[in-house]
Amino acid sequence: MIVVKIGGNILDTPERLQRFLIDFAKLPGPKLLVHGGGKIASAIGQRLGITPKMVEGRRVTDAETLDLVTMVYGGLVNKQVVAQLQALGCNAIGLTGADANLILATKRPVREVDYGFAGDVAGAPDINVQALEAFFSVGLTPVCAPLTHDGKGSMLNTNADTIASVLATALAPKYSVKLVYCFEKRGVLQDPEDDASVIRHIDSQKYSHLKATGVVSAGMIPKLDNAFAALEQGVEQVLICEAEALASLNQDNFSGTTLSIL
Amino acid sequence: MIVVKIGGNILDTPERLQRFLIDFAKLPGPKLLVHGGGKIASAIGQRLGITPKMVEGRRVTDAETLDLVTMVYGGLVNKQVVAQLQALGCNAIGLTGADANLILATKRPVREVDYGFAGDVAGAPDINVQALEAFFSVGLTPVCAPLTHDGKGSMLNTNADTIASVLATALAPKYSVKLVYCFEKRGVLQDPEDDASVIRHIDSQKYSHLKATGVVSAGMIPKLDNAFAALEQGVEQVLICEAEALASLNQDNFSGTTLSIL
Repeated sequence: MIVVKIGGNILDTPERLQRFLIDFAKLPGPKLLVHGGGKIASAIGQRLGITPKMVEGRRVTDAETLDLVTMVYGGLVNKQVVAQLQALGCNAIGLTGADANLILATKRPVREVDYGFAGDVAGAPDINVQALEAFFSVGLTPVCAPLTHDGKGSMLNTNADTIASVLATALAPKYSVKLVYCFEKRGVLQDPEDDASVIRHIDSQKYSHLKATGVVSAGMIPKLDNAFAALEQGVEQVLICEAEALASLNQDNFSGTTLSIL
Repeated sequence: MIVVKIGGNILDTPERLQRFLIDFAKLPGPKLLVHGGGKIASAIGQRLGITPKMVEGRRVTDAETLDLVTMVYGGLVNKQVVAQLQALGCNAIGLTGADANLILATKRPVREVDYGFAGDVAGAPDINVQALEAFFSVGLTPVCAPLTHDGKGSMLNTNADTIASVLATALAPKYSVKLVYCFEKRGVLQDPEDDASVIRHIDSQKYSHLKATGVVSAGMIPKLDNAFAALEQGVEQVLICEAEALASLNQDNFSGTTLSIL
């Protein structure tokens, strides 16, 4: 079982997306794709006159932003990816957390900041693994948008890295799960300015050290936290690499970062 | 098996939609919902500066309109309905024709008019009935947006009445299927201005007569054509009624129109 997350920047580049989807469609065995949003939501939001609300560098999801991401992530991006995968012979099915009650979340409690319709997922028990198994058993490949629901009638906005991590974790008791974060960089970089400075392997001890010395950037920490959380809860392997490396995951020339907890 | 189509005007009225979804969630046995688009797509299109393209009173789906309906029908409307049904205890799963390769369509050939990305569905063989059966077998209720795909990577825009009819037809060999068109009027009206003038029963002979004498309006003809096509291909019963009549389908006080081919 392979759970792949594809980052927003790749979605914004049709050629890179197409190449990525060709590689994804070729992966053998059961698989699941989680996609981010990309700049499309901001661009459409701008045309609609919706100004992005940020607090402490994090997006705040007010009611109109929730409608925007539901349209763009759950509709436009998700269905374009699904239609393209279908054309590549991969029987994809687009899902949000509301569909088949796949991912139940809680609207983030208001403390210092009101994040609006941001959905927090507590963990694997909030995932409908039975539905996923039913899809895999008939050869379907779930394509998940970064949206959840609250079980009370409202959609919620949830980080795609978190969704990938929690889905991989929920599948871990039943399958041997590999989790792959694909994005525009070659891996976790020693020097963010130098694309060749990929750190080939990070274990939990090294991760603590990298955090303490400030080598990993603020933007990378949530991704790595999600990754190590997945490993600690039974996911077999977590890889962080550029989209183009998906075809060479198990090869000696794999150019990304491999994480482990040992 | 009941296949229900809910028209656009109901989707535009939150109170009527909520009441309809409560009634729909209560229907026993396997069921499927097809929704239209409503005025939301036009309203958002207007805010995005997309002007509706009409030829001979029919919407033409150019590339930006396809993106618009993919966002609004496949994302916003579909996920709001799914999230609300989940809150009502109905395990809904939102689908377009691309998801699970549910409905394969052909881009309408350009003759006198280029309808753009309009998808024509040839009939029941273009439906992935196996996928629907898999969903029903695990207790899922499909909620279908009026979108199909061409199998070559593109989404297509398809009339919701047609989708309801062809899905009902495709299910007819396996189930005893009832097809219900719910909209804002009480049924097929003798006098379009008089909501009390519901024609209680129309058979194929009477339908020919109503068409010949101009009693049924141009807007109603495609709906009725779809309905009679479904009956001729094995759908057991077709009903046309207002959304509020869904709760009284099998009761003596049912206020809509019943169709038959005898």
